[in-house]
Amino acid sequence: MQENDFHNVVSEIMDQRSAPENQQIAVEQFEQANSPANLALLLESLPLAARLEAWEKLSESAKVPVLVEMRSDASQAIIQTLDDVHLLALFTGIGADTLLELQDVLPDRLIEDVLVRMDEEQNQRFSTAQQFDDKEVGHWCDHQPLVVPGKTKIKVVTRLLRRKTPAYCNTVFLVDSRGNWEGVVRLNNLFDADPLLRILELAENDFPTLNGKDDIYVAADRVAQSEESALPVISDSGLLIGRLDIGTAYKLQSEREESKLMASAGLDENEDLFSPVRKSAKNRAIWLGINLLTAFLASGFISMFEATLQQVVALAVLMPVVASMGGIAGSQTLTLIVRGLALGQISSANLKPLLTKEFKVGALNGILWAIVIGLITGFWFNSMMLGVVIGLAIVTNIISAALAGIFIPVILDKLKIDPALSGSVILTTVTDVVGFVAFLGLGTIFLL
Amino acid sequence: MQENDFHNVVSEIMDQRSAPENQQIAVEQFEQANSPANLALLLESLPLAARLEAWEKLSESAKVPVLVEMRSDASQAIIQTLDDVHLLALFTGIGADTLLELQDVLPDRLIEDVLVRMDEEQNQRFSTAQQFDDKEVGHWCDHQPLVVPGKTKIKVVTRLLRRKTPAYCNTVFLVDSRGNWEGVVRLNNLFDADPLLRILELAENDFPTLNGKDDIYVAADRVAQSEESALPVISDSGLLIGRLDIGTAYKLQSEREESKLMASAGLDENEDLFSPVRKSAKNRAIWLGINLLTAFLASGFISMFEATLQQVVALAVLMPVVASMGGIAGSQTLTLIVRGLALGQISSANLKPLLTKEFKVGALNGILWAIVIGLITGFWFNSMMLGVVIGLAIVTNIISAALAGIFIPVILDKLKIDPALSGSVILTTVTDVVGFVAFLGLGTIFLL
Repeated sequence: MQENDFHNVVSEIMDQRSAPENQQIAVEQFEQANSPANLALLLESLPLAARLEAWEKLSESAKVPVLVEMRSDASQAIIQTLDDVHLLALFTGIGADTLLELQDVLPDRLIEDVLVRMDEEQNQRFSTAQQFDDKEVGHWCDHQPLVVPGKTKIKVVTRLLRRKTPAYCNTVFLVDSRGNWEGVVRLNNLFDADPLLRILELAENDFPTLNGKDDIYVAADRVAQSEESALPVISDSGLLIGRLDIGTAYKLQSEREESKLMASAGLDENEDLFSPVRKSAKNRAIWLGINLLTAFLASGFISMFEATLQQVVALAVLMPVVASMGGIAGSQTLTLIVRGLALGQISSANLKPLLTKEFKVGALNGILWAIVIGLITGFWFNSMMLGVVIGLAIVTNIISAALAGIFIPVILDKLKIDPALSGSVILTTVTDVVGFVAFLGLGTIFLL
Repeated sequence: MQENDFHNVVSEIMDQRSAPENQQIAVEQFEQANSPANLALLLESLPLAARLEAWEKLSESAKVPVLVEMRSDASQAIIQTLDDVHLLALFTGIGADTLLELQDVLPDRLIEDVLVRMDEEQNQRFSTAQQFDDKEVGHWCDHQPLVVPGKTKIKVVTRLLRRKTPAYCNTVFLVDSRGNWEGVVRLNNLFDADPLLRILELAENDFPTLNGKDDIYVAADRVAQSEESALPVISDSGLLIGRLDIGTAYKLQSEREESKLMASAGLDENEDLFSPVRKSAKNRAIWLGINLLTAFLASGFISMFEATLQQVVALAVLMPVVASMGGIAGSQTLTLIVRGLALGQISSANLKPLLTKEFKVGALNGILWAIVIGLITGFWFNSMMLGVVIGLAIVTNIISAALAGIFIPVILDKLKIDPALSGSVILTTVTDVVGFVAFLGLGTIFLL
């Protein structure tokens, strides 16, 4: 339903070129109907020319929030078309959090210009964030948590709360006069409390905290595990830097999953639906090149059996079957292990029983499919010996694929390489080579 | 750090068989140190025998919460070993939400026995949830939100709040005397409010709500988008059924991503690291069978060129290169489109420009790699004509892979089939067939 509306707006935007008198109304309507996140998705879904056209139609106040929500390749494509004067007008007066979000896509000189015009407090927040790299929670946490000095009277705090509380806020953070973390008070503990009491008297001190240097995704998981709406982010010296809330944790989790999905095909998470053709081709060429190496490696092994192939051409016909079955069986084990590693469930303690189990599963499926494939092949090529050869190759390849499906991710993980990314390329190489060598080798022995 | 502790506990558990006198202390320690979720991960990581041993060592009070957190194959493996008397003792007195979580893994007769012993209110909750199927939010929402009748005086509410508020709770839900939804009051609006006022006077009526029939994952996304800590779940007739909070939304998102990861290798999300060998082999056999069909299809096409292969055996050697390059290029486009579909960014409005762009990217990479592969092949086999043939096949396959990478997911999506699951099998079939036919066909024309 919502999605359909969204698509209608896309079509409208693209059709409007022919009806300029209606543009203003339509744009106002869709700005009201859509959050910056949805407008960002919309702009990303448009080809470059239409994207710039739609961007121009946004009201000035909507532009920066929409840029913040866009993936960086897409926002960069827009920013590149804007001149310095326009850019400075757009970004003057933005807060530290916004500048941090856009830091990677804005020209360095502009960032300096914006910082000069930024007030003291925001400048301070920006430079605090800069002390952490962009994989650390200190760089990305919300710098405007609900904070009061611990000595504040409760009646002052409740008056403050009454006016407005940020999203995902059911605690007040307390700091001392130097800004150091003092503890937390839950909103519900303030009901019926003595209004003249200092709020520090109600503080919980064993509340879980994050360190500014914590990995951003680990921090997100810890927020979720804590079942608190937000955790404070503290520096090594005890300074309260900000907070990470569960809503942001949810977004971070989405981002992480998106980047995993894209990485599995050798793509960057910021790859834009309408990246410039050259840029896109260049980004993808590397992954194609890596896979070409592994394909040529497989070819190299096949070429060792040219003489055999010439005499038994059926082997060439059936090669994809052997390689495919090994690849699929291996990827099943690999996926199971990648999940186990992500959940912290694989260790030296259970590696051996895991190998035993996957070996057995591989053997069972190997034998089953060896019989099926052997029979089909035997009848197809009218040669039972060819059936036996492919059957043996299938068993060999499925079992070795299962073992490779364990060893490859475990070793990559030990080497601190993400097995979800490179595991499948290495696995395919192994199953191709083992499959071809087993099949053509056995063919050379039994069929010549 | 935390993960290492976790692994130490696993090793300890597995080593303890030799030191029974220390068992009780160790188990108490690790129950205190670990949440039910972590204990569940731990149990899942153990082979069946050790898992049952560790289970026995858990205190009775920890057992049910741990079962709730476990993936169903793993919890089922434990439940199957328990006799009826033990099971009934374990589950008597559990709440409706717990029973709902374990419904799929408990024997039907036990569920009846537990329901008979359950109090009226919990029984009511359970039967309300049963009115929705297990993909709907009404089945899974938290049935114990903070609810008060709208006519309640504010001082009564604040007294209630003071005592305890559930996690992710910064609103009070209001209902009328029949339990129908009346609106919401934010906690912070209760500060300094007249204690004798009826709470309904402060209610917000335009607060976003979920319908009990909403898809559970769509509902989770809507909770996150709302930036509220929790949304009320309402039936068609206006009854308040429960709430879905952002913490649960986070868990649902994790589950969904895990199930996508597993499904990409044809695995069930509940597949256990130590599923029984036969069960596991059976589950995986289906996926192997589907892929076998596509592999045999490719073989069928290759067999049309047996005569050519016999004369130019180099073609057989190089087949994997052509297939691999097409497969990789196609999967890159496929992944980009699968993400776009998930974000609602692909529509008839941008399909044509997308095709144009991917065609161009494919053509650019196709030509680049055709030249590289053509030259390598030419020198390797000392035949420039073979180089030309493979080059042409590569261009053809990469371009058609790019187009297939768009059409396949878009068509699957229209047919309401998840393109993330079946897209890659179909794509591989297309790129294999196109690659082999183009390569061997061109070889037949130019090399014989």
